[in-house]
Amino acid sequence: MAITIRHLEPEDYDPIIRVVNDWWGGRQMADMLSRLFFVHFRPTSFAADMDRRVVGFLAGFRSQTHREQAYVHFVGVDPAVRACGVGRALYGRFFEAARVLGVSEVHGVTSPLNRASLAFHAAMGFDILPGDAEAEGVRYHPDYDGPGEPRVRLRKRI
Amino acid sequence: MAITIRHLEPEDYDPIIRVVNDWWGGRQMADMLSRLFFVHFRPTSFAADMDRRVVGFLAGFRSQTHREQAYVHFVGVDPAVRACGVGRALYGRFFEAARVLGVSEVHGVTSPLNRASLAFHAAMGFDILPGDAEAEGVRYHPDYDGPGEPRVRLRKRI
Repeated sequence: MAITIRHLEPEDYDPIIRVVNDWWGGRQMADMLSRLFFVHFRPTSFAADMDRRVVGFLAGFRSQTHREQAYVHFVGVDPAVRACGVGRALYGRFFEAARVLGVSEVHGVTSPLNRASLAFHAAMGFDILPGDAEAEGVRYHPDYDGPGEPRVRLRKRI
Repeated sequence: MAITIRHLEPEDYDPIIRVVNDWWGGRQMADMLSRLFFVHFRPTSFAADMDRRVVGFLAGFRSQTHREQAYVHFVGVDPAVRACGVGRALYGRFFEAARVLGVSEVHGVTSPLNRASLAFHAAMGFDILPGDAEAEGVRYHPDYDGPGEPRVRLRKRI
C-alpha cells in the first residue's frame, strides 16, 4: 500500500486528537498536542496518508533560539500500519525540509521507558545526548518535562 | 517594587514547572508546558523578575506558517503579585519583540470559563475571533484543543 506524505494541516487536528491516545496504546498523550502545532509549523510538519486515510503525522519546527537546529515535538503512527515504514517516511521528509532551511541538527526527546521509540530513533541515526541519570544503559534526564516526566534527549546530524 | 523583564532561559523551566499549577489556582496546566518552549523560542519568550525572584513568564513564538503572526502559548504570573502589572509588562515586551520581527498580529487562545483572562486580554486590546459556539456573549470553539478543551481565539493587531 502506497504512503503519501504531505504537509500537516489544521483540519487534521480534530480526527487525530481523537485517536492519538489509542495510537500510543492508551497513554495520555493528547494534552501534549495542542492545536498550535497543526497551525503554526506547517513548513516542517507532515501527515502520512494511506488509502486516503491519515495513518501518521509528525509535528516539528525550526528552533528560533538555535537556528541550526530543528526539533521534532510529536510523532504518531496508527498501530495498524506500524512496520510499514510510515515513521521512517515522515522523518525522511522532515529531514529534507530541515536541510532546505539550512538546519544541520535535528533534536527530540522520548521516554526512557519507551524501548520501541529508542530502537526506532537509533535505527534512524539519532544519538542519545548525555543525561543526569542512567538506567539499563540509557542516559536520561529524570524530570526533564516536569516532575515524573523523564526524557532521553536525541540528536541527529543531517 | 520594580519589575525586570528579560528573556526566558532553559534554567527557568525547573523552578517554574514546579509552581505553575499553583499559580493557576491548582488547575492542571503543567502538561501543556513542555520544556521545548523554554529552549527553542527565546527571542519571543520572557521572564519577569521582582526582587531577584521569577514572578511571571510568557512563552511565545513567531508563526512559521503565517509569518505575519506571533502566538502567545502560555503566560503565568505568581498570584502573590497579581495586579502589579507583571502580565502587562510581559505582553508589552512580547509585542515589541514581535514588531521588530515584522509581525503585525498577535494570536492566542484562552478558556471561555476564565473570565479573568478574558477581561485581561480585552484590556490589552485583544479581540475575540468568531467561534462555533457562544456562552454568555463569548464566542468560542468547543473542542479546540481536543475533546472537552474549549478555547476562545484572541487576536490583537500590533
